[in-house]
Amino acid sequence: MANAVVSQSGGPTGVINASLVGVISEACKHKEIENVYGGVHAVAGIVAEKFIDLRQLSIKTLETVSFSPSSALGSSRDKPDAQYCQRVLDVFKKRDIKYFYYIGGNDSANTCYLINEMAMKTGYNFKAFHIPKTVDNDLLVTDHCPGFGTAGKFVACALMGDDLDNRALPGVKIDVIMGRHAGFLTGAAVLAKQRDDDGPHLIYLPERPVSMDKFLGDVDACCEKHGRCVIAVSEGIGDTDGVTWAEKMTEDAERDAHGNVQLSGTGALADFLSGQIKSNLKIKRVRADTFGYLQRSFAGLQSETDVEEAAECGRQAVRMSLKYDNGSVAMKRIGNGENYGVEYFRTDLANVAEHTKSVPDEFINADGNGMTEAFIEYARPLVGKLPQTEFLGNLPTI
Amino acid sequence: MANAVVSQSGGPTGVINASLVGVISEACKHKEIENVYGGVHAVAGIVAEKFIDLRQLSIKTLETVSFSPSSALGSSRDKPDAQYCQRVLDVFKKRDIKYFYYIGGNDSANTCYLINEMAMKTGYNFKAFHIPKTVDNDLLVTDHCPGFGTAGKFVACALMGDDLDNRALPGVKIDVIMGRHAGFLTGAAVLAKQRDDDGPHLIYLPERPVSMDKFLGDVDACCEKHGRCVIAVSEGIGDTDGVTWAEKMTEDAERDAHGNVQLSGTGALADFLSGQIKSNLKIKRVRADTFGYLQRSFAGLQSETDVEEAAECGRQAVRMSLKYDNGSVAMKRIGNGENYGVEYFRTDLANVAEHTKSVPDEFINADGNGMTEAFIEYARPLVGKLPQTEFLGNLPTI
Repeated sequence: MANAVVSQSGGPTGVINASLVGVISEACKHKEIENVYGGVHAVAGIVAEKFIDLRQLSIKTLETVSFSPSSALGSSRDKPDAQYCQRVLDVFKKRDIKYFYYIGGNDSANTCYLINEMAMKTGYNFKAFHIPKTVDNDLLVTDHCPGFGTAGKFVACALMGDDLDNRALPGVKIDVIMGRHAGFLTGAAVLAKQRDDDGPHLIYLPERPVSMDKFLGDVDACCEKHGRCVIAVSEGIGDTDGVTWAEKMTEDAERDAHGNVQLSGTGALADFLSGQIKSNLKIKRVRADTFGYLQRSFAGLQSETDVEEAAECGRQAVRMSLKYDNGSVAMKRIGNGENYGVEYFRTDLANVAEHTKSVPDEFINADGNGMTEAFIEYARPLVGKLPQTEFLGNLPTI
Repeated sequence: MANAVVSQSGGPTGVINASLVGVISEACKHKEIENVYGGVHAVAGIVAEKFIDLRQLSIKTLETVSFSPSSALGSSRDKPDAQYCQRVLDVFKKRDIKYFYYIGGNDSANTCYLINEMAMKTGYNFKAFHIPKTVDNDLLVTDHCPGFGTAGKFVACALMGDDLDNRALPGVKIDVIMGRHAGFLTGAAVLAKQRDDDGPHLIYLPERPVSMDKFLGDVDACCEKHGRCVIAVSEGIGDTDGVTWAEKMTEDAERDAHGNVQLSGTGALADFLSGQIKSNLKIKRVRADTFGYLQRSFAGLQSETDVEEAAECGRQAVRMSLKYDNGSVAMKRIGNGENYGVEYFRTDLANVAEHTKSVPDEFINADGNGMTEAFIEYARPLVGKLPQTEFLGNLPTI
C-alpha cells in the first residue's frame, strides 16, 4: 500500500472537478491505495506540502464539487524545471506517495513525464498519470479534451443569444473567444446557427491568419448581404505575416511564464478590431465583447457528455495506474451523431507532453472564415443539447 | 372591434419575449380585439408599416419565442419626437389599430404617453399600454422590472464561477457590469456569495461615486485580507467630481441618440481600472472582463420567476386595456422569502415616463462598496435558484 495525490494545474475548466471526483471515488475503491491526498494549487502547493485528506469528504460534498466550475483544489501556472521536479519528488518520497494523478493540459503531461523519468532513474516505484483537461481542446492523441464541450456550450449559447440581440438591433458584433493557438473553442460558435442567416457569419481561427484587408472585406460583404454581421474570432488570431494581432497592438504587453502575451482578461483586441471596422467601413453600430473567464468558469452550465467523460477519465487514470507505470488517458471516438460514444485508452506521457493539436484542415472552410459540416458533426455531441430559439422579425409583413 | 399592435423597444432582455407571448395569448382571447399585429423594430418599423400577423403563429412557436432571449420582433433605439409620434398615429388610424402594447423602458413609456396624448387631442379612441422591461431595474412605481431577474441570474452565476476561478489562480479580478445610472444589476453580483470569504469582495454602483484613491485603497485592503480580490463594478461608475470614469477616459467616445457615451460593447473601462491597479498597487495578476451583451441575451438561462412575471405583465396589459384608456403595468411585492409574491396594478404612463429609479440607500453598505442584507432579500426571489458550488483548497492541510 502507498498514498496517492491528485492535483489540478493550469487554467480551470467547467468539468476539471468532475475528473477530480472521478479520481477520488475510484482511488477509494482499491486496496493498493491507502490515503488519497489533494495537492493544493498544483506543484506549487505540493512542494510546500499542502495536502488535504480527500477521503474525509462526504458524498454530498463530492457531488457539489463535481458540478462546480474551476479547480476545487486550486491551480498554479508554475512550469517546473528539473530542480523543481526534484523537490516535488522529494515530497512524494517523504510522504510515501506512489500514485500521482495530474489533471491538466500538455504542460501538466510534461510535468508528469519529467517527475516520472526522475523517479525511474532513482529506482523509486512510482506511477504518474495525466488526465486531460483544456477548454482549448488542443491535446494530441485524444479525440477531444474534457472541458472543451462545456466551454463550447457556453460559447454556443452566448453566440445564439448574441445573434438574436444583433437581429433586434442590427450592426456589427465581434465576440473574442479563448484560443491562443487552437481555434476549436471559437469554432464551437458555429453550433449557435439554427437558421441559414443566423450568426456567427464569420469565424476566424489562429489556424488561418488573415490580413486586415481580407477581414474588412469579409465584414463588408456580410453587411451587404445580411444588413448585419456577427463575428467569432479567436484571441490568438494572427496577420498573414505570422504575428498575432494582439502582439501587433501591444508592445509592452504582459507576458506569462511561458513568454506568451496576455490575451484573456483584457478587452483590447476586441476594441482594436471594432475600431478598425468603424474607421474603415464607416459602420456606426459596432460592438465587441471579450468572453474572458466566463467561458471557462460559469456556474450552472455544463455539457452532460463532458461531465460524464471528465469523470470517467479520472476513474480510468486510477484503473490504468494499477496496471501500468505511467501514461495519459485518451479518448477514441467509436460513433457519431445518435451513436456517439468513446473508448478510453492509455497513451505514453511523451505523446501528449511535447506538442499541441490544431484544428484540422477539413474542419475549416475554403475561405478560412467559417467551419465545415465535418466540424459540426465532430463538436455537436461534445457540447450536447442546446436551447432552441425563435426570431419573428423577418416573417412576411402584411 | 379594432386591431392591436404589440412591439418591443430599447435594449433586449432575456424575458421581453415572454411579455410578448403574454400579450399575444391574452389578446387572442378577447372579442374586442380583431387582429393582433407585431410591429417590427419598434416605432421605426411601425412608421414603415412593417407588421406581422401574430395570430398565425403556432402554440409551439410561441413557446419557443417565450424562452428565446432578445426581442423577437426586433427593436429600435429611435426616440420619437412629436412629428415622429404623429406618423405612428397616422399609421395606427390607417390600419384601424386602437390597442397599442409597447414593451420597453421609460423611453417607451414616454412614447406611449406622447402618442396617447396626441390621439386624445384628435378624438381618436385609442388605448396605449406600456409593459415594463429593463435589465437595469430602474423604472419608477413598480417594485422591480421584468428582465432584471434573468440578467441578475447571469451576473450571479458568472461571479460565482469567476470567484472560484480567482480562488484557483489568485489575483485581482474586475468584472464590469451593465448599469449606466442604476446599480441594481451590479448589485445582483452579491448573490454569488455562498461563503464568508467569497467574492465579489467589492461592489461599486453609479449611486456611490468613488475616488481612485478610495478604490485603490479598498482593493489593497482586500488583497491584504484575502490574498485576492474580486470586484463587481457598474459601467456607469463615476468619480467624486460627478464625472463618470468612462467619460474621463474617452474624449471622443461614441454617443447614442440620447447623448450618452457608449459603455457596453467595449472593454475600455475594465482595461483602464485594471491598468490603475497594476501601476499603483504593483499587483501582477490583474484581469478584467466586461460582461457586455451576454448578460442581457444569453440563450438557455432565465429566472423562472422573471419569465412568469414578464408573461403576466403582458397579459395584464391586455386586460387593463379593456378597462382603462392607458397606463403602465406595475408590480407590488406582497411577500418575501418563501412567501414571495406580487400583485399587478395599473399606473399612469406619466409616472413611469419621466424619470428613473436609483438603488435606494438602504440597499448599499455604509462604505459604498457593497450591498446590504436588505438588498439580498429584495433581489434573491427575482433571480431565483442558483447553483451550489464547493471549493476545497482552503480545507485544513495534513
